[in-house]
Amino acid sequence: MEKINQKEINRENLLNKGVGLLMKQGYHGTGLKEILDAVKIPKGSFYNYFGSKENFAAETIEYFILPYITQLQNYLAQSEGNALGGLERYIKESIVELERTDFKGSCLLGNLIGELSDTSDTCRIALKTSLNRYRDVWELGFSCAQNEGAIRTDKSARELADIWVNAWQGALLRMKVEQSVAPLNQCYQELLLNFFKK
Amino acid sequence: MEKINQKEINRENLLNKGVGLLMKQGYHGTGLKEILDAVKIPKGSFYNYFGSKENFAAETIEYFILPYITQLQNYLAQSEGNALGGLERYIKESIVELERTDFKGSCLLGNLIGELSDTSDTCRIALKTSLNRYRDVWELGFSCAQNEGAIRTDKSARELADIWVNAWQGALLRMKVEQSVAPLNQCYQELLLNFFKK
Repeated sequence: MEKINQKEINRENLLNKGVGLLMKQGYHGTGLKEILDAVKIPKGSFYNYFGSKENFAAETIEYFILPYITQLQNYLAQSEGNALGGLERYIKESIVELERTDFKGSCLLGNLIGELSDTSDTCRIALKTSLNRYRDVWELGFSCAQNEGAIRTDKSARELADIWVNAWQGALLRMKVEQSVAPLNQCYQELLLNFFKK
Repeated sequence: MEKINQKEINRENLLNKGVGLLMKQGYHGTGLKEILDAVKIPKGSFYNYFGSKENFAAETIEYFILPYITQLQNYLAQSEGNALGGLERYIKESIVELERTDFKGSCLLGNLIGELSDTSDTCRIALKTSLNRYRDVWELGFSCAQNEGAIRTDKSARELADIWVNAWQGALLRMKVEQSVAPLNQCYQELLLNFFKK
């Protein structure tokens, strides 16, 4: 039996808690004490794992995006020669989930870009890397959809993926102020099913 | 001669300072003391003008968007029967300015949506009102451009304006992480000059 590594469990607990707190209160609004109290881990261990609050935030950002990447990859893997259909199912599922959780889920990346891009280069690079990784899966999906003749080919899959990821991020922000998934549905309908579709 | 109202000057100074500090440090990262020290106004006056830090942030949000609305209206007013040309000049000018100021200008609204939408209803409503006011000017511009036969008419000017304002907001976030205006140029080229154009 594999030995459970307590250090890894602690790191994971801290990152999980970090996602929730940074999402709800932002970077400046989240005190280190609050994180440590929530997971009952001593300050020394925290610094041993992450070195600083800034590094912790950067790792939390990269940790946050992983399940979204996996989920999108799974939808694509199960799309059986209909990549656009897989992307559509992923989007529809996301919209249902965001509505179910009262628009609070949203995207930690979008939340933190405004707060941290200008003040922390470490976090900005984590945001950039994470967004690019997520974009890369969309690029793969669009590339398959192009090969299947479902979407336009006069733009590269990378271009389409960049347009999509950015527009979706903007629609997520508008969703939060409007407390409505209408901006998401509009983004999906107009870009994916109209502008991108062949 | 009109009597200068010191109370109005103080309010304006506070709001101006508020824009800078909230943009740079976010809501939670900006202490009330920092604002008061910067403008040398006593705490009592601040509460007399705004009532709370939350109300102050809400007023700062609404104050921030006003010059953008005026500027866009001016470009449209000077467009002489070529509304799309006026909108294009406004966008190009914005891109030049964002590059000149090292991508720090961006949009206070986009920066604060993530931080405040879930935690302050007062600020969320100020964000919603401000975004809608800005959207309304785009709607007017697109409506003129439709009448002039420059852009598609199978979608309402309101729909086009919503798609545009949201996608632009997302492109501004991506600009900040990439430290490049490429996402803005892409948004402009692909949406305005491709998807929207007749």
